[in-house]
Amino acid sequence: MAKAKVPRATTKRLPIYYRYLNILHDQNVSRVSSSKFAKAVQIDPATIRRDFSYFGALGKRGYGYDVNQLLRFFKKILHQDHLVNVALIGVGNFGHALLNFNFHQDSNVRIAAAFDIKPDIINTVQSDVPVYSMKDLVSQLREQQIDVVILTVPAKAAQNVCNLAIKGGAKGILNFTPVRLASPANVRIQNVDLTNELQTLIYFVKRYD
Amino acid sequence: MAKAKVPRATTKRLPIYYRYLNILHDQNVSRVSSSKFAKAVQIDPATIRRDFSYFGALGKRGYGYDVNQLLRFFKKILHQDHLVNVALIGVGNFGHALLNFNFHQDSNVRIAAAFDIKPDIINTVQSDVPVYSMKDLVSQLREQQIDVVILTVPAKAAQNVCNLAIKGGAKGILNFTPVRLASPANVRIQNVDLTNELQTLIYFVKRYD
Repeated sequence: MAKAKVPRATTKRLPIYYRYLNILHDQNVSRVSSSKFAKAVQIDPATIRRDFSYFGALGKRGYGYDVNQLLRFFKKILHQDHLVNVALIGVGNFGHALLNFNFHQDSNVRIAAAFDIKPDIINTVQSDVPVYSMKDLVSQLREQQIDVVILTVPAKAAQNVCNLAIKGGAKGILNFTPVRLASPANVRIQNVDLTNELQTLIYFVKRYD
Repeated sequence: MAKAKVPRATTKRLPIYYRYLNILHDQNVSRVSSSKFAKAVQIDPATIRRDFSYFGALGKRGYGYDVNQLLRFFKKILHQDHLVNVALIGVGNFGHALLNFNFHQDSNVRIAAAFDIKPDIINTVQSDVPVYSMKDLVSQLREQQIDVVILTVPAKAAQNVCNLAIKGGAKGILNFTPVRLASPANVRIQNVDLTNELQTLIYFVKRYD
């Protein structure tokens, strides 16, 4: 498969496609029309065709999509065909919730290690995940070969912990802190700012009141 | 102020600008150069100028930005000048974490009511928020005039609860479920899919390994 540059917007839709294909598969549906597919995922058919085109032609005119073929395809694209271990750094309220939150219910992601500075939870198991001391962050990430981390530390610690994670080999950081992290070009930071999401929503609702 | 159509991408950056202006204000900084501002928020200066232009000219060439003026301005734009009450529907693991999570630490948002179906938490107070029965969702949203809700119910209940919230007057829904909700055109659904975010990040990390 050619490694063409895939737009970020396309990439963000891939898990949506994948999830719906799984639902269809569970319902023993083997073929789906492009219009039904579009309606279910709430993305217009032209966008879907364009998205799919980055990975080669995946539909046939007048036939629709072959569910099993697409599913195998996206499984590979999204690395769902093997388990991905990630680490969670910062076991506060929100971090704890993410440990409980079942990422791998319909995905292949597993939180394999958590890190914190609180002595009372270091060396305990929280929601089936071992909690290590922050002092061991670099060595544990290296030893467990974890290159994707979830950052849920307080804002004031964010950049420092981010630097340590990168030293430990992190190449991807899902950043739940409000801090805009500085990082080398080969490390991808994905920001999830829940306050921001809520404020944006409120802005739209109040603006068009 | 003219209600020009502001792009969604611009809107999502407004809270980032607002947050950084607050930090400057707390540091008693009254004026910031456009290049320093750009570097801190990690958005290029041309984009910032274009974003600001939707709301009228806010910077002066060779002067930079007036922190207090901008802050007053964004406070109004983002409705930070008065408290916005929202409701949280579904007090499971993740819902509970959001109740604990301090949305209004540097925002004006307050979760004023929560809803669930579990008898053992109905009519209790969780993290300072009263929990009501799901049966009272429509009447309580109307009575408390809440039009923004956070949806953290199980996927299979999502559409049904969404319909009830809309019946109760919801105009904005922050959707943490993986379900793509159907809704009338005047209701805004904002999807936050954490599994999706993590999968997208992994896709990028593994693709460029």
